[in-house]
Amino acid sequence: MAYDLWYWPGIQGRGEFVRLALEAAGVPYRDRARTDGVDALVDDLDARSGIRPYAPPYLVDGDMCIAQAAHILTWLADRHGFGADDERSNLQLIMLQLTVTDIVAEAHDTHHPIAGDLYFEDQKDAAVRAAENFREQRMPKYFRYFEDALSANDGPFALGERWSHVDTSFFQLVEGLRYAFPIRMTAIEGDYPRLIACRDAVAELKGIKSYLASERRIAFNEDGIFRHNPELDAA
Amino acid sequence: MAYDLWYWPGIQGRGEFVRLALEAAGVPYRDRARTDGVDALVDDLDARSGIRPYAPPYLVDGDMCIAQAAHILTWLADRHGFGADDERSNLQLIMLQLTVTDIVAEAHDTHHPIAGDLYFEDQKDAAVRAAENFREQRMPKYFRYFEDALSANDGPFALGERWSHVDTSFFQLVEGLRYAFPIRMTAIEGDYPRLIACRDAVAELKGIKSYLASERRIAFNEDGIFRHNPELDAA
Repeated sequence: MAYDLWYWPGIQGRGEFVRLALEAAGVPYRDRARTDGVDALVDDLDARSGIRPYAPPYLVDGDMCIAQAAHILTWLADRHGFGADDERSNLQLIMLQLTVTDIVAEAHDTHHPIAGDLYFEDQKDAAVRAAENFREQRMPKYFRYFEDALSANDGPFALGERWSHVDTSFFQLVEGLRYAFPIRMTAIEGDYPRLIACRDAVAELKGIKSYLASERRIAFNEDGIFRHNPELDAA
Repeated sequence: MAYDLWYWPGIQGRGEFVRLALEAAGVPYRDRARTDGVDALVDDLDARSGIRPYAPPYLVDGDMCIAQAAHILTWLADRHGFGADDERSNLQLIMLQLTVTDIVAEAHDTHHPIAGDLYFEDQKDAAVRAAENFREQRMPKYFRYFEDALSANDGPFALGERWSHVDTSFFQLVEGLRYAFPIRMTAIEGDYPRLIACRDAVAELKGIKSYLASERRIAFNEDGIFRHNPELDAA
C-alpha cells in the first residue's frame, strides 16, 4: 500500500525532503493535499487525536502517523534501505539529517526573523541583518561541516558509493540556497567541492531525474522555506 | 563504563535535556567540560574528524559519538529503557521530543532573533517583537498540543504511568519558560493542567529530586537558552 504524505500543496517546503527520498528510492506515495486539496489536509490533521503531528509534513501508513521531516526520513530509511547497514553509521546519518534541519530552519528565519506569521515587509529591516549573518557566518560554518562529513567515506555520498536520506537532503539544501541566495552561492560554492559533487550525484539518480522532470516537483516560490528576496542576497 | 557527556560547562542549555534523562534513569555519566574545563571541550570537538558533532551537546561511548539532544535521548532511551515498548509509541515519543526541540529553539530566538552571535542590546527591538509573538501565539499553540498529547494515555506521563525521555524534556521546558517568562507562565499555566502535572511528576522522580538538590544542577542564567529579560515578558 502506498504511503499517504500530507503537506501544504503549493510549496516544496519541509515536505520536499521526504518527497525526494521517496522518489529516489522509488517508494510509492500519495501526495494527498496535492490531489485532495488544502482543506483535506486541515481536516485530516484536525481529526487526529492523542499524540498527533504538530504540523505537516506527516506520513501515514495504516495506523502509523508521524511528523518531523528528519524523523520521517529515519523511519523510511530503516524500512526501505536508504540508511546505513550498521548502527554507528545509521546514527551518524540521523545526526547529519538533524543538522540539515537546523540550517533549513535558519534559512527560513532569514526572511522571517521575528515571527512566521508576520509579513516580510513588517520585519524587513531585521531580515536584512539576519540574512547578512546567515550568509557570512552560518553558511560557511555549516558547509565546512558538511564538506568534512562527506570526506569520511570519500564520496560522492555520505556513505560513499551508496546514497542515503542525507544526500537527498544535501541536494535540496544546495538547490534551495541557490534559489534564495544565488549571488552568495556563486561566490562560495567552489570552496565546497564535495557538497556540490554530492548534489550532482543525487541529481543523476534515476528516480530523482525522473522526479525533477515531472510535474510532481513544485517550483521554488516565495511561499516556501527558501525564498528569493534580492534585498537579502549578496556575495 | 560511564558515558562522556560534552557540553558547555556554565549553562543548562541543550545539554540539560540529556542530563535530566540520565539522572532520572540513574545512568552514570561524566560531565566532561565541568570537570576538565571548556578548553578540553573545544579541543575534544576539534580533534574529531569525519562525521562528527556540529556542536555540543554530544555523547561519547567508546567509538560512538553522536550529537543533537533529541537524537542522543532516542539512542539512550533504547539502551536504558526510558522509551516505549512498542515501535509505534516509540516513534510518537521521538516526534514529541523533536517538537520540544522546536519550541526550545524558538524560545532561544526570542532573545536572539537576528543572530546568535550578536549582543542582545544590538537586537533588542527585534527581540521585543519576537518575544511578544512567542508569548501570545507560539506558547499557547505548543502547550495545547502537548496538553493533548498528554491526554492520550491519561498521564501523568506521555506513556501514562511510566516516565520517558519526553517527560523530562517537558519538565525542563516548563522550568525554563517559568524562568524566562514568569509573568506569562503565571497567566497561562492553569490552562494546561496535564503539562504542569507532568512537570510535577518528573520533579518527584527519585533521580530528579536528588539531581535538583545537587551541585550538578546548574542554575538558570543569562547565558543559557532560557534567559530572563524583563523587557521580553508580559501577561
